[in-house]
Amino acid sequence: MTAQSSRPALKSSSPPPTTADLRRDNLGRVLRLVHEDGAMTRAAITERLGLARGTVGVLLDMLVRGGLLVERSPELPGTRGRPSPVFDTVPTGATVLAVDLAVEGFRLAVVGLGGRVLSRHEWPWDPAASTEQSVATLVQRLRAAARRRTAVPYQAVGVACWGIVRGSDGFVHLAPNLGWRDVALGALLAEGLGAGPGGLVQHVVVANDADLGAVAEYRRGAGEGARRLLYVHSDVGVGGGIVHEGTVLGASGGYAGEIGHMTVDPRGVRCRCGAVGCWETEVDERALLRAAGVADPADPAAVARAVAAVLEDARAGRPAAAEAVRKVATALGAGLANLVHILGPDRIVLGGYLADLHALSPVPTRRVLQERGFSAEARDVPILPASRRADASFLGAAEYALEPLLSDPAAAQRPR
Amino acid sequence: MTAQSSRPALKSSSPPPTTADLRRDNLGRVLRLVHEDGAMTRAAITERLGLARGTVGVLLDMLVRGGLLVERSPELPGTRGRPSPVFDTVPTGATVLAVDLAVEGFRLAVVGLGGRVLSRHEWPWDPAASTEQSVATLVQRLRAAARRRTAVPYQAVGVACWGIVRGSDGFVHLAPNLGWRDVALGALLAEGLGAGPGGLVQHVVVANDADLGAVAEYRRGAGEGARRLLYVHSDVGVGGGIVHEGTVLGASGGYAGEIGHMTVDPRGVRCRCGAVGCWETEVDERALLRAAGVADPADPAAVARAVAAVLEDARAGRPAAAEAVRKVATALGAGLANLVHILGPDRIVLGGYLADLHALSPVPTRRVLQERGFSAEARDVPILPASRRADASFLGAAEYALEPLLSDPAAAQRPR
Repeated sequence: MTAQSSRPALKSSSPPPTTADLRRDNLGRVLRLVHEDGAMTRAAITERLGLARGTVGVLLDMLVRGGLLVERSPELPGTRGRPSPVFDTVPTGATVLAVDLAVEGFRLAVVGLGGRVLSRHEWPWDPAASTEQSVATLVQRLRAAARRRTAVPYQAVGVACWGIVRGSDGFVHLAPNLGWRDVALGALLAEGLGAGPGGLVQHVVVANDADLGAVAEYRRGAGEGARRLLYVHSDVGVGGGIVHEGTVLGASGGYAGEIGHMTVDPRGVRCRCGAVGCWETEVDERALLRAAGVADPADPAAVARAVAAVLEDARAGRPAAAEAVRKVATALGAGLANLVHILGPDRIVLGGYLADLHALSPVPTRRVLQERGFSAEARDVPILPASRRADASFLGAAEYALEPLLSDPAAAQRPR
Repeated sequence: MTAQSSRPALKSSSPPPTTADLRRDNLGRVLRLVHEDGAMTRAAITERLGLARGTVGVLLDMLVRGGLLVERSPELPGTRGRPSPVFDTVPTGATVLAVDLAVEGFRLAVVGLGGRVLSRHEWPWDPAASTEQSVATLVQRLRAAARRRTAVPYQAVGVACWGIVRGSDGFVHLAPNLGWRDVALGALLAEGLGAGPGGLVQHVVVANDADLGAVAEYRRGAGEGARRLLYVHSDVGVGGGIVHEGTVLGASGGYAGEIGHMTVDPRGVRCRCGAVGCWETEVDERALLRAAGVADPADPAAVARAVAAVLEDARAGRPAAAEAVRKVATALGAGLANLVHILGPDRIVLGGYLADLHALSPVPTRRVLQERGFSAEARDVPILPASRRADASFLGAAEYALEPLLSDPAAAQRPR
């Protein structure tokens, strides 16, 4: 208890745990550990959790009987003699139907316990369909997928939506790429799928795509171990997710992470949100095309190809492209400096095309942070490319949707 | 477990609590409840904490014997018959020497358990003194103050510093108003006061003034009950504090809340930090004077008087002053809109002169939020004046410095 030894935990008093709470928490702790860190021996679990060996035995037994964990030989026996068996997750012991609402259609991945992607599917939207019809189609596809897996002890749905999504109930205020506005998607899916104990699925969550990307990187990617992670994603538009000591800003209600719409230049370009000089008008894919003097193709896939071509030209040293990349990288640094001032992240992870841009031209971005940072921590904050780029939305959606199971495995499972 | 019922708690597995932990936590819960919410009956404490009556009796007994709580008659007997006695904090059972490092000198308040300010003192700085000498004087004064109270079971020091302060160890990177740079203030005070178990004081914390203001408002002011509180303070310069679900961003290490230095106009005014177009160049006291065409007096007290005169003129309807207030209130709205996008606060509390400015001219600020907010929550986010303006730094510093005691009352107290 010398200087500054304790962190102020400012929460008000709340009811203390009971013995039943402890048992439930410990069961969840064991499952969460293996889910996050992969197969490990009984001895390793005992040591990591600081529990009595006997207690761990009982908990492991419950989780194996519940079909969530399995005891098996290790894949890589490292020592002589008979190797200790390990406990691993059963991917089909709990599955999440993870949905990514893309412009062209919706992508579905079945993600199992332990973060394993078991299968992938994709359906195009009907361009003539209304929002209501599109949601109805989504419900129908998810019902069919869920029905094929009714034997799974825990099944949930997690939806990644690019747009303004309220954390508390998955209400989609605005999904600009889909043209959706004020859709109670969380409630509609829960109702359509009969979500709840004994239902077709037990739990439904809808969350902002960048928040989910942040979670995926924090749990299973370049953000692992960060204390305050700032995740910045851009393709068309810019989104952000902030994981502060293990919790996502905005996940518990309200909206947060709309970092693309901070005003960085009141005399700048008009943004599709209606305001002038939003950060995304200087750093997203279209900003790069504009800076490079490339005509903006309306089609999203064509935008991605045009961006790849500009990055390729810059890599080859063509001046106009290189200058455009430098300009966008500088604007990236300016916005990051603001966010570093405000949030004090100890790591920044870049997703989407920003990962490629930064790999190609890291210096202008770092230069701004060096000029404007008030401390060594701010000036030298690590900036890493996202490591789960293709699957980030799916993995993040799965983590959200598995949360009730990881918190209370016994209660969350279907009665068998 | 229907839609979105659970909030993702993304923390990794950590060791579970033992019975001793539970006892310690419960002792802290009882003390924290009375410290935060004031005197209450044994029945009320039992109900609020959901503990067994017998357990609460044992815990209250320990806290009374430890000199932290006292049982007494209620001050306002509301019912007939003999009123139930209440348990209240003993202000002198634990005291914090709360320090505010001001430009002219340092102010000291002795704050007792329960957030009661017991006494106040003030010393001017020696203008000829070096930083080392000033810190030595501070240590000397604090030693003298602490020596007068060695009978107090828990005594700590909490320092509010306007500037860039590292949350983990109270290292002052920059305190512009004092001209301090790279001062290991937390460590110097801890060493100079022999902080630790059995020492003259048990605990020392140094924190950013705006973070402490945010804590004071969250615990005992206009921020009570907010889920994500944004506190914005301005006199000379702008500082911010963010309390996210009970914890302060930046308190656990690193720097955060330097909201005054987000760039809002790359062609704007040069800031004292060296960058161009920082938000504080548009919204702090000097920005108001500049907008009103009033010459900037160098002396801080004179600045405050000049600002009060401009606000008074605006109130009286004088056009130049009213226009200056409108201009600054609009710039306040623009920065708040950025912060609302990024952080998604459910309440904003304005401290310092901004509370007066907003009371006088709330419309331009709200108009920007209405125009730029993406959701009803963002557009209509409540903006309140700070309610603990004079004592915010002291009360916040006391809350930080009392934290070890509130977390573990038995261990934190001096042996008696």
